[in-house]
Amino acid sequence: MPELSRTRDAALRERANKVVPSGMWGHLHAAKLPDAYPQFFRRGEGGVLWDVDGNRYVDFMCSWGPNLLGHHHPEVEEAAERQRRDGDCLNGPAEVMVELAELVVDMVGHADWTQFQKNGTDATTTCVTIARAATGRRKILVAKGAYHGAVPWCSPSLLGVAAEDRAHLVYFTFNDVESLEAAAKTAGDDLAGILVSAFRHDFGFDQQLPTAEFARAARRICDGRGAALIIDEVRAGFRLNAAGSWEGLGVRPDLSAWSKAIANGYALAAVTGANRLRDAASQVFVTGSFWAGAVAMAAAVATLKVVRRDDVPARLARLGQLLREGLETRSRQFGLSIRQSGPVQMPTLLFDDDPDCRKGFAFCNAMLARGVYFHPKHNMFLCAAHSEADIAAALDAAEHGFSVVAAL
Amino acid sequence: MPELSRTRDAALRERANKVVPSGMWGHLHAAKLPDAYPQFFRRGEGGVLWDVDGNRYVDFMCSWGPNLLGHHHPEVEEAAERQRRDGDCLNGPAEVMVELAELVVDMVGHADWTQFQKNGTDATTTCVTIARAATGRRKILVAKGAYHGAVPWCSPSLLGVAAEDRAHLVYFTFNDVESLEAAAKTAGDDLAGILVSAFRHDFGFDQQLPTAEFARAARRICDGRGAALIIDEVRAGFRLNAAGSWEGLGVRPDLSAWSKAIANGYALAAVTGANRLRDAASQVFVTGSFWAGAVAMAAAVATLKVVRRDDVPARLARLGQLLREGLETRSRQFGLSIRQSGPVQMPTLLFDDDPDCRKGFAFCNAMLARGVYFHPKHNMFLCAAHSEADIAAALDAAEHGFSVVAAL
Repeated sequence: MPELSRTRDAALRERANKVVPSGMWGHLHAAKLPDAYPQFFRRGEGGVLWDVDGNRYVDFMCSWGPNLLGHHHPEVEEAAERQRRDGDCLNGPAEVMVELAELVVDMVGHADWTQFQKNGTDATTTCVTIARAATGRRKILVAKGAYHGAVPWCSPSLLGVAAEDRAHLVYFTFNDVESLEAAAKTAGDDLAGILVSAFRHDFGFDQQLPTAEFARAARRICDGRGAALIIDEVRAGFRLNAAGSWEGLGVRPDLSAWSKAIANGYALAAVTGANRLRDAASQVFVTGSFWAGAVAMAAAVATLKVVRRDDVPARLARLGQLLREGLETRSRQFGLSIRQSGPVQMPTLLFDDDPDCRKGFAFCNAMLARGVYFHPKHNMFLCAAHSEADIAAALDAAEHGFSVVAAL
Repeated sequence: MPELSRTRDAALRERANKVVPSGMWGHLHAAKLPDAYPQFFRRGEGGVLWDVDGNRYVDFMCSWGPNLLGHHHPEVEEAAERQRRDGDCLNGPAEVMVELAELVVDMVGHADWTQFQKNGTDATTTCVTIARAATGRRKILVAKGAYHGAVPWCSPSLLGVAAEDRAHLVYFTFNDVESLEAAAKTAGDDLAGILVSAFRHDFGFDQQLPTAEFARAARRICDGRGAALIIDEVRAGFRLNAAGSWEGLGVRPDLSAWSKAIANGYALAAVTGANRLRDAASQVFVTGSFWAGAVAMAAAVATLKVVRRDDVPARLARLGQLLREGLETRSRQFGLSIRQSGPVQMPTLLFDDDPDCRKGFAFCNAMLARGVYFHPKHNMFLCAAHSEADIAAALDAAEHGFSVVAAL
């Protein structure tokens, strides 16, 4: 197997290191990935990526979520281009904001209204602010280890964060009703809301879908206390159920935060809310220079129409099921014990007895050399542009990957 | 003078009211403007806007800052389109991130490195986080009434904000050295940094450029205490001096926050920093789903190259001077006493003896009816697409506006 060429990537990393601290920031920093992974990308098409050295990958990270329909989806790009010819960032919104808001309210089960932002963190922060404004209380219950953004109140890192930034967070364990009730008790009369991910997708751990019991407990606590149930749909949104990831559980939130896939890669986020939160949402001051940008909204309208028309979550589930079954079969052929967790549309694959992720890294490096981009620790993402041939290619590469791990 | 048509705008507001709390959020909410102002826009071209009813305005808000070179600037759009054909939101940055970072570091006086975000608030929040990480301290000095973003730690509204969100802010008065020194004394050994706007541009007040004495005092305090001097360039950036708004004062910050104009309307923000903050910047966890988006970066490269090649700040200063002098002359013709403040590239016009802004609103309504979009309370923005004919049109409209105010 030839080594992947990394000449151009290496040269860019060297230049980047001089002008960007450590060459890159945040979740896209290649230093957190196996050595063979590229930092810089040249091109995307559908569910396929090319790095700057021309290496081609069937991509199962999908931009860490935003790529839902495939890069350069014709309907999305046409809608964006049409809006772009008129204008993007004006002195107020364009008509498309109303069209998008009506579509979101129509699609999302609990939504009576919506507001738009740019980052997922904007949406989660806005939800917390609205919940506090509506209740006049301060405590927000959050699951230990959950990711809700990268600003001081919720960042996974404590560096540069003051204790006061998290003064009013109270922690519970995902899917643990008892711990949720205990946290609510701790919050007491000051409970403003419960913020919970659509499912548990903590970095490096097995994923968990919420149990109906847990979802109902969260709803019951909020109802009993007049607090707001907030679902963080930033990562899961539009991949599990376009009406809301908890719709199948029969539990609806008061507020949800959306971003990533909502405009198929265009920068957009949204908060959706129920009528009882509408006044508070109209009174808090939340804004950004580009939040009314019309091109991303036009892209979102096109994206969501395709999601609904083509039942994208069902397509992803079908492809994801093929991938999961194929990985299970092939890992067994090599006598390897793997754990696949979470919804099949957003799979996580971890190896048993792999505390330092040595197996995971070797597996992913081997996959990458065969042209398939997997992540060794984080949940992955399918997109509607993936084909059965792409899944077959991934399984072929995985067979190679498992053989490498088996030989470790 | 015929009334402006508002049929379509009214219909959209009615629809928006149903699906967006109060029909719009934040600084672009038309409810904060005189009655005649539109909420929804159809099109932008250069320095001109059309609302959804087809009314045309020479625009002096420029999207509240982002429109620096004019809507649909050919070089910016071409660069963005070229990048778009390759890809935008990938699994990591494209080569253009390095090109942009090198350009920013080359242009901005104090910058040894840079990082990119989406919102101005992302950039100011990142600066504060880096300052705290670098110093291991918590207190940030900020000017009373200054705007640094719309999240709990800095929002102009306290609704939904807990006292702890601002536990480590200490307030001073802009341009008041004594108050700055007193604030530093209050912060004591816990001083992490001073965050200050490039100039004082508080909403509804006369603007103030910083005095050299004030700027030097801020630098001296930070040097003496090992704290970080942070300039918020989000609003002023690239309009006063592309190397940094304080370059003319001979004072350089340790960190600056940029956004708005940096990519001529494409959503982008940046932090620039000096080498002594590089380690902290590489260690804090700051990220967003779209922060590595390549199209906005390509737009920024093109924008900044034009800014440098054409000396855009100088062009804006020349046009702004014409506008300021013309407004002064015409207001006097009507015996009106107005106050024009701040840099001419970002003018604020307020009427004397106008506590409820009745004069300002009447003036702006009259301007709007003559096809010129002014703001009655907020600083305005010039763009490089404005021509001398646009300034003349604004002055003609202003003459009408002053006549209306004189007759109140």
